[in-house]
Amino acid sequence: MLILQKQIKLIQRPTGTPTKEDFEMVNAPIGDISEGEMLVKTVYISVDPYLRGRMNDTKSYIPPFELNQMISSGVVAQVVDSKSSLFEKGDMVLGSLPWQEFTIAKDNTVRKIDHTLAPASAYLSVLGMTGLTAYFGLLDIGKPKEGETVVVSGAAGAVGSIVGQIAKIKGAHVVGIAGSDEKVKFLIDELGFDAAINYKTQDVAEALREACPNGIDVYFENVGGEIADAVFPLLNNFARIPVCGAISSYNNEQVDVGPRVQGYLIKTSSLMQGFTIGNYASRFGEGAKDLATWLTEGKLKYEETITEGFDHTIDAFLDLFKGSNLGKAIVKVAEIEKY
Amino acid sequence: MLILQKQIKLIQRPTGTPTKEDFEMVNAPIGDISEGEMLVKTVYISVDPYLRGRMNDTKSYIPPFELNQMISSGVVAQVVDSKSSLFEKGDMVLGSLPWQEFTIAKDNTVRKIDHTLAPASAYLSVLGMTGLTAYFGLLDIGKPKEGETVVVSGAAGAVGSIVGQIAKIKGAHVVGIAGSDEKVKFLIDELGFDAAINYKTQDVAEALREACPNGIDVYFENVGGEIADAVFPLLNNFARIPVCGAISSYNNEQVDVGPRVQGYLIKTSSLMQGFTIGNYASRFGEGAKDLATWLTEGKLKYEETITEGFDHTIDAFLDLFKGSNLGKAIVKVAEIEKY
Repeated sequence: MLILQKQIKLIQRPTGTPTKEDFEMVNAPIGDISEGEMLVKTVYISVDPYLRGRMNDTKSYIPPFELNQMISSGVVAQVVDSKSSLFEKGDMVLGSLPWQEFTIAKDNTVRKIDHTLAPASAYLSVLGMTGLTAYFGLLDIGKPKEGETVVVSGAAGAVGSIVGQIAKIKGAHVVGIAGSDEKVKFLIDELGFDAAINYKTQDVAEALREACPNGIDVYFENVGGEIADAVFPLLNNFARIPVCGAISSYNNEQVDVGPRVQGYLIKTSSLMQGFTIGNYASRFGEGAKDLATWLTEGKLKYEETITEGFDHTIDAFLDLFKGSNLGKAIVKVAEIEKY
Repeated sequence: MLILQKQIKLIQRPTGTPTKEDFEMVNAPIGDISEGEMLVKTVYISVDPYLRGRMNDTKSYIPPFELNQMISSGVVAQVVDSKSSLFEKGDMVLGSLPWQEFTIAKDNTVRKIDHTLAPASAYLSVLGMTGLTAYFGLLDIGKPKEGETVVVSGAAGAVGSIVGQIAKIKGAHVVGIAGSDEKVKFLIDELGFDAAINYKTQDVAEALREACPNGIDVYFENVGGEIADAVFPLLNNFARIPVCGAISSYNNEQVDVGPRVQGYLIKTSSLMQGFTIGNYASRFGEGAKDLATWLTEGKLKYEETITEGFDHTIDAFLDLFKGSNLGKAIVKVAEIEKY
């Protein structure tokens, strides 16, 4: 019996903001597994801003997606059939997998997760790459000290919301920048940020001056653009800027232009460092341990915006650029089965 | 007898490029020395691009110059009268001193230099702040490894010419960017750079691509502006950018605008760090020792553009922004006397 499943392919490289027309949903057979392989059912798909970069045909830290091939990203899946001695039916696994309902995965391409410790989706957010990105970017580059001021943009997003909470754990004065009053309220009331700014309704430069009376020691960069421009004049001496993302420019068709930063960096002896989480692969264990501890201790909360149904995966991705998600954006494709 | 001497004061803050009208030369009495003080005669004055920043009334790493007060900078002087047990007539000293022909200096504000080891003027260039700026910026932030590609802008200037030579000592492939064919020839023929680019006659982006077939690992930033813009697309993974100066923007009246750098830093996990030499004060000994060794061994050459006469100090300063100097710009005010 030929069983068909749905797949999502990139059929043209987006110009500017991605649209539905850049993708195609197709039906394809599932195929058979060989020795050392498992058939896994997609449960959760991670949709992330950085995927936009991979849709361009340009050199970056990871190769671009190929045209007419499936998109792939972080996926939590469940083993439904196994010819591997390492995994059995029912196991929950995590890997970088294609956007389809079922995948035939080699047993060395995924790792088992324990979803009794934390919900399976948390392995795509706070306990996964998102949490580790926040952890290493903030602590290895930002190095916040007690009493320092940490500003984070994209603060209600997947990475930003964890960055701010870790900064609070480290005793910093934490200011978030986000895009709605609801998010501002969430950051202050739910996550314990000291202040938060709605960049859509407030003058960011003025609001930052008010929220950061002692200047800015760490700026965790998620968005770039004019929001970042407003931060530079307020940097303290020896400020640190982990550069994690620049979502405001990902869809730009023209070169993204703004005030040059060299003068600010010189005046304050400040550091700006780009990073991707792959740089820290050898230290994931260290980060995962701290994140899990803080989560268990109730010091770390995480929010997810879950879109239901594989058919809405593309919508969930496109929504990232509308700024509508709170916390980590995840697509729920299937229920976890008990076997 | 009242002896008058000349002094140079800042009488208005420059708008854009400084002009002679921003300064005033006045006559003033020399005064008498007290216990613990010496009368020193100015021999060499260092004129440096960073002084432009101190002429603005803005917060920076050093306070702005006061209006109607003298400019000050690195000065080599000779003791002509002493009421200090630490210095005697004829001693050569180095300090941050006002622009005047004679200064009454407290004995804890200057240090003695040995001008039998190297010419006295070298203490304002290769053996002074200039050399140390090149040394720490390149080695502490840039960290060039053997075989890597180091690009330096302002390459024929005081700092840049030393940066390139230290990079060569460390085994790097060194490419300089400068503003005339004469400078380009000097960098390659005299200082041993592997390649050099004349930004006034060449397409910098294209010339860099050609001169850096393996990309750019270290960019030592002296100039900012469009020259820097051309560097970012060629950065290798984990590139380092010590940000020392941005002379192209010092005289800008409008905000200096260009392509935002965040995207480049993320794609390559690169680091950009502003610094000033004061950050390394505790390590000056280490740097001075290496620089003196390389100088003695003939591995380090230095060039000076010497302007004769205190009356031409302002001209020498203004010339910095015309890009006409080769190596360190110094004003020779007086001869060293033998007592």
